[in-house]
Amino acid sequence: LFSTSAYRSIAVAEMSERDMKSLKVKKDRLMADIHHSCQWGEGERWGDHPTETGMSRLSLSDTDKQARDWFAATTESLGCKVTTDEMGNQFAVRPGLSDGPPTCAGSHLDTQPSGGRYDGILGVTAGIEMLRALNDAWVETTYPVGVINWTNEEGARFPKSMVSSGVWAGAIPLQTAHDTKSVIPSSDTATMRSELERIGYLGPTPCSWQSNPIAAHFELHIEQGPILEAERRRVGVVAGVQAYKWFTLTVAGRDAHTGATSFAHRADALLTASKLILASHRIAARHSALASTGILNLKPGSTNTVPGWVQFSLDVRAPRDETVSAVEEECKAAFAAIAAGSDVEGVNAGCAPSERQCSVEWRTDFVSPATHFHEDCVSCVSETGKDLFGDADVVEGNLESWGKMMTSGAGHDSVYANMRVPASMIFVPCREGVSHNPREFSTPEACEDGAQMLLGSVLRFDRLRAQ
Amino acid sequence: LFSTSAYRSIAVAEMSERDMKSLKVKKDRLMADIHHSCQWGEGERWGDHPTETGMSRLSLSDTDKQARDWFAATTESLGCKVTTDEMGNQFAVRPGLSDGPPTCAGSHLDTQPSGGRYDGILGVTAGIEMLRALNDAWVETTYPVGVINWTNEEGARFPKSMVSSGVWAGAIPLQTAHDTKSVIPSSDTATMRSELERIGYLGPTPCSWQSNPIAAHFELHIEQGPILEAERRRVGVVAGVQAYKWFTLTVAGRDAHTGATSFAHRADALLTASKLILASHRIAARHSALASTGILNLKPGSTNTVPGWVQFSLDVRAPRDETVSAVEEECKAAFAAIAAGSDVEGVNAGCAPSERQCSVEWRTDFVSPATHFHEDCVSCVSETGKDLFGDADVVEGNLESWGKMMTSGAGHDSVYANMRVPASMIFVPCREGVSHNPREFSTPEACEDGAQMLLGSVLRFDRLRAQ
Ligand SMILES: NC(=O)NCCC(=O)O
Ligand SMILES: NC(=O)NCCC(=O)O
Repeated sequence: LFSTSAYRSIAVAEMSERDMKSLKVKKDRLMADIHHSCQWGEGERWGDHPTETGMSRLSLSDTDKQARDWFAATTESLGCKVTTDEMGNQFAVRPGLSDGPPTCAGSHLDTQPSGGRYDGILGVTAGIEMLRALNDAWVETTYPVGVINWTNEEGARFPKSMVSSGVWAGAIPLQTAHDTKSVIPSSDTATMRSELERIGYLGPTPCSWQSNPIAAHFELHIEQGPILEAERRRVGVVAGVQAYKWFTLTVAGRDAHTGATSFAHRADALLTASKLILASHRIAARHSALASTGILNLKPGSTNTVPGWVQFSLDVRAPRDETVSAVEEECKAAFAAIAAGSDVEGVNAGCAPSERQCSVEWRTDFVSPATHFHEDCVSCVSETGKDLFGDADVVEGNLESWGKMMTSGAGHDSVYANMRVPASMIFVPCREGVSHNPREFSTPEACEDGAQMLLGSVLRFDRLRAQ
Repeated sequence: LFSTSAYRSIAVAEMSERDMKSLKVKKDRLMADIHHSCQWGEGERWGDHPTETGMSRLSLSDTDKQARDWFAATTESLGCKVTTDEMGNQFAVRPGLSDGPPTCAGSHLDTQPSGGRYDGILGVTAGIEMLRALNDAWVETTYPVGVINWTNEEGARFPKSMVSSGVWAGAIPLQTAHDTKSVIPSSDTATMRSELERIGYLGPTPCSWQSNPIAAHFELHIEQGPILEAERRRVGVVAGVQAYKWFTLTVAGRDAHTGATSFAHRADALLTASKLILASHRIAARHSALASTGILNLKPGSTNTVPGWVQFSLDVRAPRDETVSAVEEECKAAFAAIAAGSDVEGVNAGCAPSERQCSVEWRTDFVSPATHFHEDCVSCVSETGKDLFGDADVVEGNLESWGKMMTSGAGHDSVYANMRVPASMIFVPCREGVSHNPREFSTPEACEDGAQMLLGSVLRFDRLRAQ
């Protein structure tokens, strides 16, 4: 490789521009890692090809354990030391020429109950591909580099997204995280701690940015939105992440016979919940924000019983913290009034007046303020993109031609990492912007672009540190 | 007892008015049977007294088997022959002086998942109390009398209410009934037939009014509505039952990320279902009908995934068949239009327009047309009431003073029985009209009134047959 003689490693600090450009990730090897690791937790099939299935690998499940075992074995075989912390976060670190906290590529291997093969998985496997590419070319970084698999990023099973990078950053207390209960109905009464113990991933390393520091956090992720595809850009340089809050709403009414109870005598928790969901949508729409309900459980659950109890999730998002708060406050006022029978948001118009009322209770589960990524990391990403794609596309190498500056609608572990160390993200296009869906798809070429960007960004940061 | 000498039975046909009046049910014994039988399937506690719990005895569950075993053993010990048919219906028959189909008291021992101690249970235990009272006084009826425990009257586990009297009446095919699947989510994949086999109640007797006939069907039940209590009446003489239809609606959209998917790109099955539930309520209210949703399931079920699939039940009721049909037709048109984005019923007003649409599919699960009970049975009940209560309350013995002519909002096995033989019902007041709720309650005095009415009505019909 390069201009060096055989049997000698090369230091990043000594690599020329040309050397850097010739250091390539391998698309087929990356795709093989993605699909190999997707054998654990296979989800719904949507096409004929063997890889055309979604994923169902809930955090700390048996299949998550299998994926973790594979991550540890693979990164160890590539020469890393792997530590597991008290939240089950795995840190695979490759040595540098000098000691110091590693410059990291991080993402997650857990998925939605009915998710895809790229959300999180791409970021971790691209980190592994970075290690493979460095090993192939005998490249020595100045400081260590690492790959991180964060626990329960999705928040699908345990309803706090990015909870384990949150603990690492000191933003969420360890005890709170450990005590978080599964929201999967029926038999799953696990907490994060009980599941970490069960699958053998309650590690000895403190989950803390102070005791287990990293130098920077780069995260490659599928966009999960339609912009890059629609605008035909190869990558997105992510400047920040929008704000969001998660709530659990409990509506209490009275179980009653559907045939023998007049509308006036009912306190119908499901009819009320329907009105609240509709009102939250209208309020969010007015603020150009988002409000969504993804979970709804009710009791007692029979065709001929008016439900006396409904619980549902509410996820409110907007680019600015103030907007999320405004939607929250309007929803709080509207929900109370609607449950009491007032015609707020027009949802009680045309409904039979009821002598009985439902009560509505709010619980805040999770708060993620708006995030602006660190400028050092953002410029490492955009400079890398300019080097990789700029010349090919336009003479001047202009971000707007090959990529796009953008904000993430979804949360990521980089949000919490960015609270303590420089962090930023790289997006690649995904089909129709669809994610949290078995059909989630990014082309091998897009995955390759992203991995190449990740490798370049991490090395660029390593050079920056060395200066 | 009576004016007869010891050690001799007395024929109903020979009993004087005074004899008839002195034949009494025993309140304490009836209440003991009710509460004894409620040991199987105890539900939610709502008060301190041992009997202040609800019931949770789903049809063909282990606890339903225990209640059935008790029913068979108890009625056999009272001298009955008990047969079990192919739907698990139990017929306990006490001999008459002449052969012939039995005049029956029937109801059910299954309950809602979170039901009370009176709905169904009162009717069966009052039938048992009728047997006890006849035995105590050595009364011989002209024709046999019987007590029936019908299977899955509630339709809570298997979503066809009164399905087993429906099969008996030839209105529902045996195969359809046997194949009915449980609607309890998660692990319950049973059919009626598999559960009948499992608990040993798939009987040898054909489930048919022709092969296993009865002469008449009287059913004592709690009112499940607030009228008798509010008007301070002791009993209701039930003239008929309103019409109803049950549907399962399936809304299909697309799973999507709650944070990364704009409203315009969503096909949100839960937001759509919320609009449909609200629209069904408004349409029913305009027709003075009822529309209710008691079951709602969604997929995939995570805080940050817009649900791509929702299924919910819809129960539509009105006194007249035409009204139920009109509500159904209006809902069909409105649901299609709402899912397609039109602002029918005002539910799409203020919502973000979406490029994507959800589909809505209807399945009809159960149809129960409006029922008018047989006049012979209705007058047996009202004459009995006049005898029992009329003189005490007013000189003339006027139905409006001690009781009320009324229509049932809920369905009952008497509906199907009435298709083939004379049938009618007796209602007693229940607290606040509440049923399908653990707090369902009727006073011991109301239960006694009802049992006394049931005994009197059955004997009156026996006399009518003898004429
Ligand atoms: N990237 C991603 O899907 N993260 C899950 C957290 C969120 O809901 O935004
Ligand atoms: N009585 C009663 O609750 N029957 C169940 C059938 C119905 O839903 O009306």
